[in-house]
Amino acid sequence: MISEKMKGYVAGSSAIRAMFEEGKRLAEIYGAENVYDFSLGNPSIPAPERVKSAVIEVLNEEDSLVTHGYMNNSGFEDVREAIAKSINERFDTNFGVKNIIMTVGAAGGLNVILKTLLNPQDEVIVFKPYFGEYRSYVSNFDGVIVEADCDENFFPDAESLRSLITPKTKAVIINNPNNPTGVVYSEEAIINVAKVLNEKQEELGTDIYMISDEPYRELAYDGVNVPYLTKYYNNTIVGYSYSKSLSLPGERIGYLVIPNELKDFDDVVAGANVANRILGYVNAPSLFQKVIKKCLNEKTDVESYDKNRKLLYGKLTEFGFNVVKPQGAFYLWMQSPVEDEKEFVAKAKEFNLLLVPGSSFGKSGFVRLAYCVSYEKIENSLPAFEKLAAAYGLNA
Amino acid sequence: MISEKMKGYVAGSSAIRAMFEEGKRLAEIYGAENVYDFSLGNPSIPAPERVKSAVIEVLNEEDSLVTHGYMNNSGFEDVREAIAKSINERFDTNFGVKNIIMTVGAAGGLNVILKTLLNPQDEVIVFKPYFGEYRSYVSNFDGVIVEADCDENFFPDAESLRSLITPKTKAVIINNPNNPTGVVYSEEAIINVAKVLNEKQEELGTDIYMISDEPYRELAYDGVNVPYLTKYYNNTIVGYSYSKSLSLPGERIGYLVIPNELKDFDDVVAGANVANRILGYVNAPSLFQKVIKKCLNEKTDVESYDKNRKLLYGKLTEFGFNVVKPQGAFYLWMQSPVEDEKEFVAKAKEFNLLLVPGSSFGKSGFVRLAYCVSYEKIENSLPAFEKLAAAYGLNA
Repeated sequence: MISEKMKGYVAGSSAIRAMFEEGKRLAEIYGAENVYDFSLGNPSIPAPERVKSAVIEVLNEEDSLVTHGYMNNSGFEDVREAIAKSINERFDTNFGVKNIIMTVGAAGGLNVILKTLLNPQDEVIVFKPYFGEYRSYVSNFDGVIVEADCDENFFPDAESLRSLITPKTKAVIINNPNNPTGVVYSEEAIINVAKVLNEKQEELGTDIYMISDEPYRELAYDGVNVPYLTKYYNNTIVGYSYSKSLSLPGERIGYLVIPNELKDFDDVVAGANVANRILGYVNAPSLFQKVIKKCLNEKTDVESYDKNRKLLYGKLTEFGFNVVKPQGAFYLWMQSPVEDEKEFVAKAKEFNLLLVPGSSFGKSGFVRLAYCVSYEKIENSLPAFEKLAAAYGLNA
Repeated sequence: MISEKMKGYVAGSSAIRAMFEEGKRLAEIYGAENVYDFSLGNPSIPAPERVKSAVIEVLNEEDSLVTHGYMNNSGFEDVREAIAKSINERFDTNFGVKNIIMTVGAAGGLNVILKTLLNPQDEVIVFKPYFGEYRSYVSNFDGVIVEADCDENFFPDAESLRSLITPKTKAVIINNPNNPTGVVYSEEAIINVAKVLNEKQEELGTDIYMISDEPYRELAYDGVNVPYLTKYYNNTIVGYSYSKSLSLPGERIGYLVIPNELKDFDDVVAGANVANRILGYVNAPSLFQKVIKKCLNEKTDVESYDKNRKLLYGKLTEFGFNVVKPQGAFYLWMQSPVEDEKEFVAKAKEFNLLLVPGSSFGKSGFVRLAYCVSYEKIENSLPAFEKLAAAYGLNA
């Protein structure tokens, strides 16, 4: 008999599985080329060529006992040092080896920091819509998710945040560039959030940590600035991943940044180190730590995602859909023409278009499209989107 | 402020860190070559050469989007199929792809299965001495560790087990070959455990899962048989790792075996799949899944560990220490000549010998030596052990 908590998770995950199975079923009936799957946030751009040569270099240069061996639970010191230096150069920060903890992707990093911080019933504030996995990560440690609103630009609403902070508020998660909206929060939006957090910390005499989940940092378009959050608020912890920036989602490699300015810095670092170990990660995969060190200046092909973005955003707007203009990540957030977006998702499926309902992100009435697919796939999907728009009389 | 639970973990882990720091301090004073560190279970044999060529083959043969990409949370199907086939050939079992879940090492696998099974206050029985991390893994999910005794051979004591099973008993962890004792449990010992579990399941009307933690399976000496536990008890789940068998501890790659015969098989598999995802592993590192598929017939250099074992066991016995003869893993379990083994560990340190007190494994009065070091290191340490024995009048 599985645990009571797990029964709930399994029931919840069967909806996602059902969608996945439905996609496979449609592909079998109509052929994969005639099914337009915009449901998965899986990079469509291969890893840079440098990753391959870096793997081979590491295997040739380093002692196998080091490359594949245990190290400090926080990761190889040379790798952490190189990452700190790279962040400092890019964002004018001042991190060192002790501020970086290598993690099993951003998902591993978030679990590590939440395990470090959360007592049961502690509250973690997210802004809806938000990445649905946050619910599970917080629930893993018996924390409580509290959903704040965004404003009309899908930026965090600072007053909604203020109204929800209680003495039990332990953390606020900021996901920028945002999944699912594709919005990039402005510096002003971040300053407003930081102001509320500072005021509330003082008023309540508590520590409220801002957790910056930024796997999409490198996917930003139109030259938009993605603020580096440690510069705006002292109690900030950054969770980063190479899943999207280097198209390595399966390799499970990322890091946490824990700045010196953080309240209880030593304890948080020691706790994160322990959490990395006892949650069973032990350490981030060793070979890929070394590979990352050699690929810090590599970039994924952002231009290809941008091309997809422009085509899809332009055409969907032209067809009469109400779409939030994305400036980051590889997601596009679109209003459902009917209140119940699940009905819209079902209708889209009739045209072999697979979308994700906004309720999966805590915000109904919208759908998410992941445009990390081939340009050709988007081109081929356009007649289906046009018919879908017509079915709702949008482009009349 | 870190969580209350984490404060306890951090305090506990500082003892281990202190030992590690002490080792570094001694190395600085006396030179690394004059410090005999038997405290770490880190393979001293490099990964087989085939690992390197397999990495390069995978990079050359497979599409980068597959090699480094997301897959089903349970792992690549071709890899799981190949592993199932390999187990079937070796142990005359009948597993298929759906019985294998790839995990972030055995530590990841144990956390996945414990998250799947445990309700708060559920009890997990271990046999002391036992791998100390089990305490944390069980505590992660608010389970309770219950310590059963071993018999005089350090085999599980079936009657001690019987006396401790309650309606809250959810699982029993069997670690064979054993860390810290180096003992390999006999088939008879396993049959006795299975008999008690079957009787108690019937008596109480509950399900009690036997979790076989076997990262040391391939490290067995003297031609000893290491029983494959699914053959002795239906409710068995196996956790395996390539950390020791292929000297890849840093790569975090292993698997769970969940047999069809398991009670609530479908739910347990679905739960483990979800747990893999929401604990933040998402999936076992993708490149190394593919590498493992090519290395299923590779073996580490067991003969070198065996040579170490024979030298150390023979000499320590000759010096008058009371040592349990190890037949597996790379650990040796030795009785402390004084009741308080921490005093003995402190005395050993005066001779630059680093040992781990048995109380770290729930069993005081003993110490653990990890002989995954160079043969030369063992040779060089012998005069120190001889002096240590003399300090207690053992070889008089």
